[in-house]
Amino acid sequence: MPRYRAPVRDMKFLLHEVLKIVDLSGFEPFADLETDLIDAILEESAKFSENVLAPLNRVGDHEGCTRHEDGSVTTPTGFRDAYRTMVENGWLGLAKSREYGGQGMPGLLSIATLEMQFSANMAFAMYPGLTGSAATAISVGGSEAQKQTYLPKMVAGEWTGTMNLTEPHCGTDLGLLKTRAVPQADSSYKITGQKIFISAGEHDMSDNIIHLVLARVEGAPEGVKGISLFIVPKFKLDENENPGERNGVSCGSIEEKMGIHGNSTCVMNYDDAEGYLIGEENEGLKVMFVMMNEARIGVGLQGVSQSEIAYQNAVDYALDRLQGRSLTGPKNQDGPADPLIVHPDVRRMLMETRAFNEGARALLYWASMLEDLGHHSDDGKLVEKCDDYLGLLTPVIKGYLTDKAMLTTIDCQQVYGGHGYVEEWGMSQFVRDTRVAMIYEGANGIQALDLVGRKLARNGGRALMTLSAEIESFTNDNQANGDISDFVEAVKDARTSLTEATMWLMQNGMTNPDNAGAGSMDYMHMLGLATLAYMWGKMAVVAHQAIDDGTNEEFYANKLITGRYFVKRMLPMMDAHLARLKTGAEPVMALKASGF
Amino acid sequence: MPRYRAPVRDMKFLLHEVLKIVDLSGFEPFADLETDLIDAILEESAKFSENVLAPLNRVGDHEGCTRHEDGSVTTPTGFRDAYRTMVENGWLGLAKSREYGGQGMPGLLSIATLEMQFSANMAFAMYPGLTGSAATAISVGGSEAQKQTYLPKMVAGEWTGTMNLTEPHCGTDLGLLKTRAVPQADSSYKITGQKIFISAGEHDMSDNIIHLVLARVEGAPEGVKGISLFIVPKFKLDENENPGERNGVSCGSIEEKMGIHGNSTCVMNYDDAEGYLIGEENEGLKVMFVMMNEARIGVGLQGVSQSEIAYQNAVDYALDRLQGRSLTGPKNQDGPADPLIVHPDVRRMLMETRAFNEGARALLYWASMLEDLGHHSDDGKLVEKCDDYLGLLTPVIKGYLTDKAMLTTIDCQQVYGGHGYVEEWGMSQFVRDTRVAMIYEGANGIQALDLVGRKLARNGGRALMTLSAEIESFTNDNQANGDISDFVEAVKDARTSLTEATMWLMQNGMTNPDNAGAGSMDYMHMLGLATLAYMWGKMAVVAHQAIDDGTNEEFYANKLITGRYFVKRMLPMMDAHLARLKTGAEPVMALKASGF
Repeated sequence: MPRYRAPVRDMKFLLHEVLKIVDLSGFEPFADLETDLIDAILEESAKFSENVLAPLNRVGDHEGCTRHEDGSVTTPTGFRDAYRTMVENGWLGLAKSREYGGQGMPGLLSIATLEMQFSANMAFAMYPGLTGSAATAISVGGSEAQKQTYLPKMVAGEWTGTMNLTEPHCGTDLGLLKTRAVPQADSSYKITGQKIFISAGEHDMSDNIIHLVLARVEGAPEGVKGISLFIVPKFKLDENENPGERNGVSCGSIEEKMGIHGNSTCVMNYDDAEGYLIGEENEGLKVMFVMMNEARIGVGLQGVSQSEIAYQNAVDYALDRLQGRSLTGPKNQDGPADPLIVHPDVRRMLMETRAFNEGARALLYWASMLEDLGHHSDDGKLVEKCDDYLGLLTPVIKGYLTDKAMLTTIDCQQVYGGHGYVEEWGMSQFVRDTRVAMIYEGANGIQALDLVGRKLARNGGRALMTLSAEIESFTNDNQANGDISDFVEAVKDARTSLTEATMWLMQNGMTNPDNAGAGSMDYMHMLGLATLAYMWGKMAVVAHQAIDDGTNEEFYANKLITGRYFVKRMLPMMDAHLARLKTGAEPVMALKASGF
Repeated sequence: MPRYRAPVRDMKFLLHEVLKIVDLSGFEPFADLETDLIDAILEESAKFSENVLAPLNRVGDHEGCTRHEDGSVTTPTGFRDAYRTMVENGWLGLAKSREYGGQGMPGLLSIATLEMQFSANMAFAMYPGLTGSAATAISVGGSEAQKQTYLPKMVAGEWTGTMNLTEPHCGTDLGLLKTRAVPQADSSYKITGQKIFISAGEHDMSDNIIHLVLARVEGAPEGVKGISLFIVPKFKLDENENPGERNGVSCGSIEEKMGIHGNSTCVMNYDDAEGYLIGEENEGLKVMFVMMNEARIGVGLQGVSQSEIAYQNAVDYALDRLQGRSLTGPKNQDGPADPLIVHPDVRRMLMETRAFNEGARALLYWASMLEDLGHHSDDGKLVEKCDDYLGLLTPVIKGYLTDKAMLTTIDCQQVYGGHGYVEEWGMSQFVRDTRVAMIYEGANGIQALDLVGRKLARNGGRALMTLSAEIESFTNDNQANGDISDFVEAVKDARTSLTEATMWLMQNGMTNPDNAGAGSMDYMHMLGLATLAYMWGKMAVVAHQAIDDGTNEEFYANKLITGRYFVKRMLPMMDAHLARLKTGAEPVMALKASGF
């Protein structure tokens, strides 16, 4: 049975020492922010995730969700109770506005608690996670009345939320969607159509489910310009705004999936369901993309969260399992064999995962802080920078982090040998659950295209230029720091390779867009590696300073060791990606479609 | 429902044009070998795999195997009948000696039929596959009487076979195994102990199951020097050598696994079971390793077979599914969207898989021909070369091909977007089934260590030097072939990088064996890439010649296009591996065990 221990020490390092979360107390909503309060919340969150959510992870995988003949869905044993505990403890509203009953804490704190929830039980944490995203969409695009009606219940967790985009014939290409919305005299709409792959689409955990549904109003323009966004509650609200009559939406079936069995992935049938427009007609995608961007960062977090729990269990196994002898002579002389951890190739898998997890966590938390700053600052230049960076980083966080998390969870499973392949040990579940993160909220190929085709070019390339200049300042500032010169040089090299790739794309993507398309995945991975290198550089500075200041906590020395693994063994991938990228469109486009 | 079409054209290209299988007719047992016969066998094999085995693949995954209270195991619906058809058609004996009822065909032909069986239904094909390996062990190590008793039945497929190595506390480290063998007056032994992860350990497809079991004879030396190999039939044989009384071996449970559900992975309990020694006491590992080496090549083949069927289905989907528009303008003007195949990143995933599959198939078939030559030639120098090459290539085929196949099946699943994550489409199964190939028959880390620690150094490095010289001759011979100079240069570069890596290991592995251990996985991948480059070079020569000779078959031009993808986009990984390898032990060994 896998174990989970929230990496609270590492979270505190990032929040307090690297990102300096208490500095956010300069913004009015965070005026109460104090180190002790933050630490107390982290500790409570760790207990909740370790003790309530983690024990249900295997149960959820094993039982899955059950759809009954009447279309109702039962979640796995224990999910309902755990959800109730979560609601009672107020975890859903941690970073939501106080106006709607939230606690108004920074996203930078909330992301740590979300990481714990996803690590402990990804399928479970998707229910509140989607509610959070749906609430964001309403708060961004909804009318004041809609906000007052839905947000307090969703922030409290009494009602949950979903996102309804995909239809049988269209996922990525939303312009093809067919779900119809017919305006009614009372300003509501009748929604009819079928949506598939709807996570948390139907379940037994909340009193109501607020579906956010993309549909096409009769007579709307074709393609993406004619898509509107609607609120469709499972139960219509009565005069007291309590769940009343059942709406015309139901779960037609639930999918049998590779993983996240504990989350009900539904086919949702809308049959003249009553829906309420969010914002203006044909402007649905704008709001949906706000929600999508938040969700994409959440998916990157899911990947890293699975990599983290897979790592923890692989370490346990490697320390415990006796098999073979160290190449440099027995290390466990009195035992029948040495623990797996003595073997360099086992360590390679563990170090790779560890170095990725810690770097990725820094990137995620930094992005989360950028959101806080962008949201609350009135410094126009800073807000612009945050917005620029988030534009660049969102596809990297979704795409690169989940691609890499897939490989690290596989590595961690590999540490177990045959026991990793057997469901009993739980490592298979981490791999199967992680797999979806590369796919949903925009498959990773779409993330790469979004990065290269949209985010990179926006405002004349301002975002990347700003980030690149920031990284250059960092290396200049730390040039004299001899003890971590390997980190500084590595960040420099990564920036140089990234610049070369960017230049190549600019020069060759114009003449033939397929050049950009063919290199987009390599570029996304390069930006991922380069930003992780930057994160490692920043962490190395802090860790080194702590050592200089005489800390006797091994944490800091281990941080540098882990960072050096990243620098030496993971960064060399930059040049392989660069070489591939520069081969352009030809190798991938040359074969005729009929030749495949 | 996934489809399978055996890649017969590509198989013929390798057998006839690249490897020239009819040249084997120079050896007496293959005197009848003719092109038409080979082609007829390939076509029949294709029909059998496509029509009989492939339709049962999803059934096997879905139903799995069922163990009943009496310890008997039922295989999925249709497996028994398909197996009977297979036996009746004589597929098991294709490459087995005529002396025991086989058809005595070359392994080079047999590997093509095995590839088809594994592609169509990996979990099914493991039953006869293991029987083949077990028969090999008996034919290598068994007494004449044992051969006469067991081989005809196993070659016919009336009896199946298994390999029993792993115990709960030991997998890789066989020196720890505890199963006891007590000599009896009649020269048999009583075997007692528990074996786990026994593929095809119990089932309903054959009249008897011949378990090959590693055990320790009472009083034997400790560790690997005290291990013996035994034949333990499920049913003891009566005076007419027919299955009679039940032996003391039974299936205690079957494992719930990530994949290959159609194969019964058993815990086997031996309780004073009657066993018969193969060869001498304490010499069991030698024979087991013959069997293991054959099985390891089979596992590499499994990986590639899954990558092949995943590729075929991903291509179907990419041609069929309309989503988005080409970056260079609509290609399906009259349709609502373009097929996925227009998108460079979708093509990248397909081309990567295709270029890997075709290169890997060439490597596998070449290795199989080396086995045929090594077995039948009386040219001592050639036999030595074949043995040397197989020593080097076996870990590469097992380790590198399955590592890479895991990534390509994931890529093919990715082409399907959300539909890839849903079990209904079958892509998840390919990923889940492939996953085991990185683990069993020696986890890939062990393969890398076997390569670097044993195979590379053996006979003063003779094997790699011979192979390297052969590759150099190839590039010299084709230096003037301007049209494929990119292939020739790529093979040269790969050889240079490989040499550099080998030199580094020689210089640094001696001073600290952990340097070799830390770089072993990178080195195995480098040798994999270099040998695939060599295979692509050889295929390019043949394809280019056919074009020069005026062929109008597009196959040859497509072969060059596919090979150029490999050269341009896959070979750049060589240098990333080299850079990592040269960082040595330090990055992976620096962290104390307690620091993880």
